[in-house]
Amino acid sequence: MKIVSYAHDGRVSYGFVVGDRVVDHRDVPGVTAGSVRELIAGGTLPDSAALAAAPATAGLDEVTLLPPVEPAKLLCAGVNFPTHREEVKLSAARPEHPTIFTRYADSVVGHGEPIILPRVCEQFDYEGELAVVIGKRAWNVPESAAAEHVFGYACFNDGSARDWQRHSGQWIPGKNFHRSGGFGPWIVTADEVADLGDAELVTRVNGEVRQSARLKDMLFSVAELIAYVSTFTPLNPGDVIAAGTPGGVGLFSDPPRLLSPGDVVEVEIDGVGVLRNPIAAQD
Amino acid sequence: MKIVSYAHDGRVSYGFVVGDRVVDHRDVPGVTAGSVRELIAGGTLPDSAALAAAPATAGLDEVTLLPPVEPAKLLCAGVNFPTHREEVKLSAARPEHPTIFTRYADSVVGHGEPIILPRVCEQFDYEGELAVVIGKRAWNVPESAAAEHVFGYACFNDGSARDWQRHSGQWIPGKNFHRSGGFGPWIVTADEVADLGDAELVTRVNGEVRQSARLKDMLFSVAELIAYVSTFTPLNPGDVIAAGTPGGVGLFSDPPRLLSPGDVVEVEIDGVGVLRNPIAAQD
Repeated sequence: MKIVSYAHDGRVSYGFVVGDRVVDHRDVPGVTAGSVRELIAGGTLPDSAALAAAPATAGLDEVTLLPPVEPAKLLCAGVNFPTHREEVKLSAARPEHPTIFTRYADSVVGHGEPIILPRVCEQFDYEGELAVVIGKRAWNVPESAAAEHVFGYACFNDGSARDWQRHSGQWIPGKNFHRSGGFGPWIVTADEVADLGDAELVTRVNGEVRQSARLKDMLFSVAELIAYVSTFTPLNPGDVIAAGTPGGVGLFSDPPRLLSPGDVVEVEIDGVGVLRNPIAAQD
Repeated sequence: MKIVSYAHDGRVSYGFVVGDRVVDHRDVPGVTAGSVRELIAGGTLPDSAALAAAPATAGLDEVTLLPPVEPAKLLCAGVNFPTHREEVKLSAARPEHPTIFTRYADSVVGHGEPIILPRVCEQFDYEGELAVVIGKRAWNVPESAAAEHVFGYACFNDGSARDWQRHSGQWIPGKNFHRSGGFGPWIVTADEVADLGDAELVTRVNGEVRQSARLKDMLFSVAELIAYVSTFTPLNPGDVIAAGTPGGVGLFSDPPRLLSPGDVVEVEIDGVGVLRNPIAAQD
């Protein structure tokens, strides 16, 4: 099942993707949750027959997609692929602990919306990633039980102002510019992703492949990231962990291939979808 | 004016401090905001005559104080005093840019509540700081206009799991353990703090002074921090910036003087108040 948040006819709502159409949640018998966070927390999804029988609100390409959920906590794993560690001159080996930083929810936009290249940024970059959406409160969860806490997956673009990322040792400013990343196009529920490890994560800029990796190449798995993060902070339904980007980011290409207004970035994950965003200059 | 959030008789509410009593917001004519965030955003505070005439709900020592506001964004400045920079072996000079990281709101407790020393942490430390509460949306605010965006101040204890802070280059895990910091006891509105720069910030552990500095010794001022942060992320009423800690933290004392269950940490700022928290082991 694919869940979208969207704006249409001046109204913000959420719904389900059926083929190339959006079915609003209000039109599906039995769905009572008023928001995606409530839907995730409640745990009751519509059955597929009810969904198929419900009228569609609009075509997917007729609505404005928003980030599929607004996470209260959006944590990101850094340098979690050997190929990315190598390009940033770290040992490719798995370190003892993951690298974790945070983004605010308003630092990302939905599929199709422009990602904003900040006026003050001189080195703006993409990072294609897997986003993991938490389904059940996770606090001190062992790795062996972590899978039960996953609701679903989405594509993520951890858009980065590289110069601001390196203003100090802490990356927060460069990783939190308003509307500088992407999240979507939808949440696909975990049951629909058959083999996550074997899935390919590909990032394209203007159609050209820049990053390509298997998710099983992540040094810390989704389960390990949930276990580690939930040791220090409780995760709640709708919270998100972005799991890190592979080699091939723009800054470390030779020569660097950073983003400019007008570029289009796509992040595609097998079985999850394609997140596509144009890059626009800040007003 | 001093604003508190509190629990009393099984109810969570907010109110105003009059002498050593709490006046609930519902008992003050003209106050309509249902939460501290709304009160801050609305900008209409009760006049002092109405407050003095209102009945008190309870004594300050009879209620459980909570963090005075729950910030959607709680950002922290790191290594912002020369004395702290020296003890962590950085140049004491002002760097080109501030160091900024984030905490989640649930990583702090109110005045009097126990700060939780995490089970997995072997090096738990205090950091006394000034907390700045934002009063008006701040987005791309120049330093010269920053003061207009300050609602008030509080004391802050940026409790730190030093071992987890250094698991990677990013400090987030060590700075975000659930209930590992303190914030309070109240918000004092900016008009009541006559000379913030000259105010002394003192941290005591079990009554012994461990940190002592003037706020004017901060390398980046409150106005500079608001200008810098609001360049990358919009701040809203009720958001908080913790402005950094001076030298004297436990880890860098010789020998180290870290916290143990049963210790009591106080952070006092002239004209703002005293934030006192006992340290308790995680269950």
